[in-house]
Amino acid sequence: DPSVTENDAADPYSSDPRRTGSILQQHTQKPYNAEPPSQLLVGDYITPVELFYVRNHLPVPVVDSNAYRLCISGEGISETSFTLEDLKTKFQPHTITATIQCAGNRRTELSQVAHVKGLSWQSNAIGNAVWEGVLLRDVLRYAGLNPDDPGAVEHIHFVGLDAGPDGEAYASSVPAALALPRDREVLLAYKMNGESISRDHGYPVRVVVPGVVGARSVKWLGRIVTSREECQGFWQQNDYKGFSSYTTWESADYKRVPSIEELPVQSAVCIPQDGASVALDEETVEVVGYAWSGGGHAIIRVDVSADGGKTWQEAELLDSARSTYRDWAWRRWSTDVRIPTGVSEMEICCRAVDSAYNVQPDSLNEMWNIRGLLNSAWHRIRVGVRVDDDE
Amino acid sequence: DPSVTENDAADPYSSDPRRTGSILQQHTQKPYNAEPPSQLLVGDYITPVELFYVRNHLPVPVVDSNAYRLCISGEGISETSFTLEDLKTKFQPHTITATIQCAGNRRTELSQVAHVKGLSWQSNAIGNAVWEGVLLRDVLRYAGLNPDDPGAVEHIHFVGLDAGPDGEAYASSVPAALALPRDREVLLAYKMNGESISRDHGYPVRVVVPGVVGARSVKWLGRIVTSREECQGFWQQNDYKGFSSYTTWESADYKRVPSIEELPVQSAVCIPQDGASVALDEETVEVVGYAWSGGGHAIIRVDVSADGGKTWQEAELLDSARSTYRDWAWRRWSTDVRIPTGVSEMEICCRAVDSAYNVQPDSLNEMWNIRGLLNSAWHRIRVGVRVDDDE
Ligand SMILES: [Mo]
Ligand SMILES: [Mo]
Repeated sequence: DPSVTENDAADPYSSDPRRTGSILQQHTQKPYNAEPPSQLLVGDYITPVELFYVRNHLPVPVVDSNAYRLCISGEGISETSFTLEDLKTKFQPHTITATIQCAGNRRTELSQVAHVKGLSWQSNAIGNAVWEGVLLRDVLRYAGLNPDDPGAVEHIHFVGLDAGPDGEAYASSVPAALALPRDREVLLAYKMNGESISRDHGYPVRVVVPGVVGARSVKWLGRIVTSREECQGFWQQNDYKGFSSYTTWESADYKRVPSIEELPVQSAVCIPQDGASVALDEETVEVVGYAWSGGGHAIIRVDVSADGGKTWQEAELLDSARSTYRDWAWRRWSTDVRIPTGVSEMEICCRAVDSAYNVQPDSLNEMWNIRGLLNSAWHRIRVGVRVDDDE
Repeated sequence: DPSVTENDAADPYSSDPRRTGSILQQHTQKPYNAEPPSQLLVGDYITPVELFYVRNHLPVPVVDSNAYRLCISGEGISETSFTLEDLKTKFQPHTITATIQCAGNRRTELSQVAHVKGLSWQSNAIGNAVWEGVLLRDVLRYAGLNPDDPGAVEHIHFVGLDAGPDGEAYASSVPAALALPRDREVLLAYKMNGESISRDHGYPVRVVVPGVVGARSVKWLGRIVTSREECQGFWQQNDYKGFSSYTTWESADYKRVPSIEELPVQSAVCIPQDGASVALDEETVEVVGYAWSGGGHAIIRVDVSADGGKTWQEAELLDSARSTYRDWAWRRWSTDVRIPTGVSEMEICCRAVDSAYNVQPDSLNEMWNIRGLLNSAWHRIRVGVRVDDDE
C-alpha cells in the first residue's frame, strides 16, 4: 500500500507513536497494549483518549492521510476505492456513542483460578467514546451491494494496514446479520471524541462495530471484503473464540467453536480499587463502576454487595440510556455501602442485568477457559477495613 | 366485537374448548393453564399442538372467522380493518419456526427456595412450532406506517378478543425496535404446524414475536395499536417484570422495572425425569433436553454434568440451526453420561451458551424473585441409582 511507510526490519515497532508520559499501565510494548488505572476509568462517561485502553496486535502503521485509500471488493461489489475526503464528503456523517471492550478484559481474575494464555488485562480494557464517521451500509451500497437484501452476502471482512513480520495484516470479519442492518449502526469512523482518531486508535479510519467484541473494530482500515465465508485469518479463526471450562489445550478445536461477536453482560467495580483500605469510622464507602452489555442491550440494574454476595443493594445508574435495545454505551453506576464492623476486610462485588434480563454468573471457576476470554463473572474486590486511631 | 359470542355470566369459561383426553398436565382450569410431561416434550423438534403448553389469562373467546376483523389504529396509521381473507390474500405469506416460552417456565424450582406468586410451571412451559402468517411490518405499512422509519412509532400494542369479567381484554405491547425491523420477523399467524391455529392457541389469528417472552405473542388478536407509549394494561405494567433477588413485596415498584421482552439463554433436562431411577449396571444413561435463547441467538453449546456441576461434558446438539443471530427455534440435545458407582443418587444438570456467549448462572437462590419469573439457572434433577438384583 503506497500510503503506508515500510517498517524498519530491525525494529518494526520503531515507528510506533511516542507514548512518554502516558497514564496507561503497559502490559507489552511491542506490540503496545495498555489499560488505564481503574479509579480514573470511570471519571467521565466519555473516556478521554488518553484513558482509553490500547490493544495493538502489530506495529502501528505510518499512514499518509493524503495517500490513504479504502479499498472495497468482494461478493456483489463493484471494486472501488475511497480517499479520506471521499468518505467525508460522499456520505452522510453519522455519530454514535459506543463502548468497545477487549475479549480479554478481566483475564487476570481467571489466571488466579488456573493458568491462562494471554495478556494480563485487569478490568479496564474497556472504554466509551463518541465515534464519528460514515455508515458501513452506506459505503457498501455505494459500491453496489444492497445492504437490506438478506441473501446478498454473509460476512464483511475488515483488513488493517498494520502488518506483521510475515506481511500478514490484522484482519477480522463480522457476520452480515450484525454488520448491515440499519439499526446496527456499524461505522467507518474518522473521529473519536471530536478529534481525528489518534494513531494508537486507528488513524485515519477504523471500524466501530457497536455491541461486538473489540477485535472486530479493526483499526487502520485498509480494505473491506464482502464474502460468503468468514475471514480465514489467524485472529478470526485461531483466537477470539470461547472455549468451555473443561476444554484443555489437548482437546481444543478452534474449528468447532464460533467466533466471538456480540458480548455478554458485564460490570466491574472501579472505585475503590482492589486492595485499598477504608477507615471503619467513615461508616460507608462509595462504590463506583461500569456496566455494559453487547448487542445493543441497555443495562437495567446493577446489584452491589459489601459482604461477598450474601446481601445486595441496587446501585444508582449514572448517565442516561439512549434506548433499551439499541444502546451501545456503558452506564456508570455508584452506591454507598455500609462498612461492616468486626472485620479486617470486606469483599465488594457487583453484577449487572441487561434489557434481555441476561445476568452475570457468579462463579469465576465456571467462567475459566484456556484463553482467559469472556470473563463476565461477578466482579469481586477486597478492601481492608482500618480502625484508625482517634487521637 | 360482533365476531365474538358473549360469555355466559354464570361461568365465563363455559365456552372454553373441550380438553377431555388431553396429555397436558393442568395447573388451573379457569383460565386453562397446562404443560406437557417433560419426557414427551423433546420427542420432536416441532412440538405437536397437543404437547404445546397452554397459557390462558382469561376465557377462550368464541370467534366466528367469517365475522372476524383485525383492526389497526394509532400513531401514523390510517385506521383500517382486515378480514381473515384479507390477511391471507393481500400480503405475502411468511413462515418461521419459533419457540415460545412462558416467563414463568421453571417457577416450581424457585418456589423451593422460598414462596413465589404464580402458576407452578415445571420446565415444560415452552414449545417450538412452525408458524405461518403475514409479517406485522407488511400489515402496518399497508395501513400507512413506514416500518423502516426509526422515529415513526415507539410501541406496538396487541389486544386480544379474550375479555375478563370487567370487560378488559388481554393486551400487551412490544417496543418498535423489536417488532418492526425486517430481521425480527414478527408474525400475525393463522397457522400452527400447517393447520389453522387451535382455539387454545389463538384461533383465528395470534401474534408470534420470536425471541421474546410468550406474553407478547397475543392470542385471538383483535386490534393492533401503534403508540408513543407502552401498553398501560395490567399484564404489561403489573406483571411480566423481573425483580431482583432482594426485592420484597413491600419494596416492589412495578413502575421502576422494565417489561420483560427478549428472554435470556435457557436449557432444561427433560429425560430422565426428576425423581426417576436408573440401574447401575446400565453403566450410562442418556440425557436429553432442550436449549434456547431469546433475541434470535442460536445455541452454541450445552454442558451436562452427572455430578451436580463438578465435572462437565458437551452434549450433542440435535436438529440444525437456521442461523447464528436470527435463530428463533430451540435445539434439542442429548448425551450419554456415566452412572457413578457407590452413590444412591446422582444429580444431573445442564447449562447452555448462546451465540452472544451469554451463559446461564448456577445459583437458583440468586435467580429467585417474588414473582418467580425468568428462572434460567442451571437446571438440576435428581435421579436414583438402583443396584438391581442380577439373579
Ligand atoms: Mo481484544
Ligand atoms: Mo407467560
